[in-house]
Amino acid sequence: MAVGVAKFPSMPEIAGLRLGIAQAGIKTPDRRDLVVIEVPQGASLAGVFTLNAFCAAPVTVAKQHLAEQGSGVDSARYLVINTGNANAGTGQQGIEDAQATCRELAQLAGVKANAVLPFSTGVIGELLPMSRLLAGLPEAFSSLSQSAEAWSAAGEGILTTDTRAKGATRTLDVNGATVTINGIAKGSGMIKPNMATMLGFVATDANLAPEVLESLLRESVATSFNCISVDGDTSTNDACLLISTNQGARIEGQEALARFGAALDDVMIELAQAIVRDGEGATKFVTLDVEQASSRQEALDVAFTVAHSPLVKTALAASDANWGRILAAVGRAPVDNFDVAAITIDIGDVRIVEHGGRAASYTEAAGSAVMADDNITIRISLGRGADAARVWTTDLTREYVAINADYRS
Amino acid sequence: MAVGVAKFPSMPEIAGLRLGIAQAGIKTPDRRDLVVIEVPQGASLAGVFTLNAFCAAPVTVAKQHLAEQGSGVDSARYLVINTGNANAGTGQQGIEDAQATCRELAQLAGVKANAVLPFSTGVIGELLPMSRLLAGLPEAFSSLSQSAEAWSAAGEGILTTDTRAKGATRTLDVNGATVTINGIAKGSGMIKPNMATMLGFVATDANLAPEVLESLLRESVATSFNCISVDGDTSTNDACLLISTNQGARIEGQEALARFGAALDDVMIELAQAIVRDGEGATKFVTLDVEQASSRQEALDVAFTVAHSPLVKTALAASDANWGRILAAVGRAPVDNFDVAAITIDIGDVRIVEHGGRAASYTEAAGSAVMADDNITIRISLGRGADAARVWTTDLTREYVAINADYRS
Repeated sequence: MAVGVAKFPSMPEIAGLRLGIAQAGIKTPDRRDLVVIEVPQGASLAGVFTLNAFCAAPVTVAKQHLAEQGSGVDSARYLVINTGNANAGTGQQGIEDAQATCRELAQLAGVKANAVLPFSTGVIGELLPMSRLLAGLPEAFSSLSQSAEAWSAAGEGILTTDTRAKGATRTLDVNGATVTINGIAKGSGMIKPNMATMLGFVATDANLAPEVLESLLRESVATSFNCISVDGDTSTNDACLLISTNQGARIEGQEALARFGAALDDVMIELAQAIVRDGEGATKFVTLDVEQASSRQEALDVAFTVAHSPLVKTALAASDANWGRILAAVGRAPVDNFDVAAITIDIGDVRIVEHGGRAASYTEAAGSAVMADDNITIRISLGRGADAARVWTTDLTREYVAINADYRS
Repeated sequence: MAVGVAKFPSMPEIAGLRLGIAQAGIKTPDRRDLVVIEVPQGASLAGVFTLNAFCAAPVTVAKQHLAEQGSGVDSARYLVINTGNANAGTGQQGIEDAQATCRELAQLAGVKANAVLPFSTGVIGELLPMSRLLAGLPEAFSSLSQSAEAWSAAGEGILTTDTRAKGATRTLDVNGATVTINGIAKGSGMIKPNMATMLGFVATDANLAPEVLESLLRESVATSFNCISVDGDTSTNDACLLISTNQGARIEGQEALARFGAALDDVMIELAQAIVRDGEGATKFVTLDVEQASSRQEALDVAFTVAHSPLVKTALAASDANWGRILAAVGRAPVDNFDVAAITIDIGDVRIVEHGGRAASYTEAAGSAVMADDNITIRISLGRGADAARVWTTDLTREYVAINADYRS
């Protein structure tokens, strides 16, 4: 199940960036499961990673290799991503396997081992099948290409329980030159703020100072990948990389930087929303808008308390406008001195809660009508201040339980 | 579904306490849904209530009436409990309805209105059917009895989606006299710390100073009702009352107080565990023991992070020893400077995690064997200190989703 129509855009080329793919047979023999991304000398890379204390071996190694990079000629040159196995909970052997993967690709490419950043997704706690993985690297390396087909193959090659590939692209004009931003992502469960089982790789040909790249990534992630939740679980493997090949137009000045940032946000939000739409067992795409909070953190706390409530999520699955469950979830959010009389809650354009109880204007018929849609917006106004947050989530269905009870993922 | 065998003990009488029940037709015409508990003049009462900001009208009124009581002759005299309707999210009308219920019972009994404490459980956001509720009060009042049958009828009369009544009883010898503690409780979903949709009424004939009763209740709740979770949701209506009729032996001195406290803990924990065993759709009863934490709060944080993880709970439903999901949940607990190398995790007597990854001794066969049981203990040792917490929870099944998606509760 997934909400809405699948679409993977045709990606323009990003000057200097190539993608390759192979069928390594990491978990199953019949799918392409190994992706290599090549970036040119002089590229810049920024990354954000899971906050899970049990982070996976590739996260440890990728962070270390990224920290060892300078800018310019010493930048990282390759990303290697396998699906089917997360190389998490694998102790010292996992670290050695991630390093061996980097060494092998570095040798093929004629670069240093720490110019390679490894990423893994899939089952936790099993050792990588290293002979099969390493045997797949030459095929992935030799297939490197800038083409739209390479982007879509890579989009497919990083999936796990996802039902569809997730890609987004934007172009913008900078002083008469076209700048492109492409992104691919994976993730459908274990999704919550701070990067839950998701991988995101976003690249641009724009020429950006490394420190600008870093802050662009952090700002964009804060309102996209860190504002989604499927089940409140956070993975050991999450990572989001932003790459600039620096071969296109230079982004300078406030105006150009703001336009670039907005386009980057568009790509990141489209990818983040695609992850929610493909949430395990999802039949609803839910936007939670929390307004009039006294801080952004407070707004996020309320939004995620509602987003994680199994009773709200099962009501959404049933298209039941059980506003009492939304009210109860808001009421248990970690907010001091909540004045419930000041809170209003709307589903779409139907006011459901005001003055501490059900809105006088509310009718079951209106509630049922607005809940019948696949796309539902719940707006919660706290009456405490001027801060806000927007979070996306899904319903909780029998299918979610079936997926996660029946499969070892 | 529920875990284990249903049993409601035969309750000894509590001197001075009587229970009555009626069929008021609050939600459905065919069940007894209105309970009255009478306590004698000179009884002491202590209560703890939901922290949900949208607390229900009866919670507001019960807290107010409890605060207005003195001890001795001015103590509260009646509890009135309806199921089928929570009188929550009902605004000012809800408050007036709860007060009217108190007034009506007070008139029947010849006491002041604030000597009555109201409690409600059931659907949120609908007004109480006051004419039916008030019409049921004389029947409940006239059926007041000290008998074991009255206790079991009251245990049945407070249920909602529960599949079984929950009762526990203990006696202890105090200076040659027998002291009795009886308790009944309800709750099966929306269960998490701080009193999620649960009602608990525990009574003793022991003679206890009111301030002692209050601290006994708080201490006992902290390791019983506040250490359980079915789905992480917290209700608008939770309350737990501890009543001493003060007509039995006086509990004096450290030794007698400690023995009484231990017996009270036994009753509270048995009731709390019964709620978990009857968790909506539950097929597993899971004990989470977190040890070697640097504070009790830290231990509770880790325990509840695991207890609330949908991925852990679905793995439990599948009897899948997917230890990677437990590791991932522990890793995302809100603990600073986690040293994952110091953490060990065991399921039953099977070590699953050590040295930051899967235990060397672990085998799938051993993991599967220990997960096949209905009763599972997960022990997580953090290697950080000397504090601990024990929390009880359930698995997450398709049946849970079916119950909560199909019924308006």
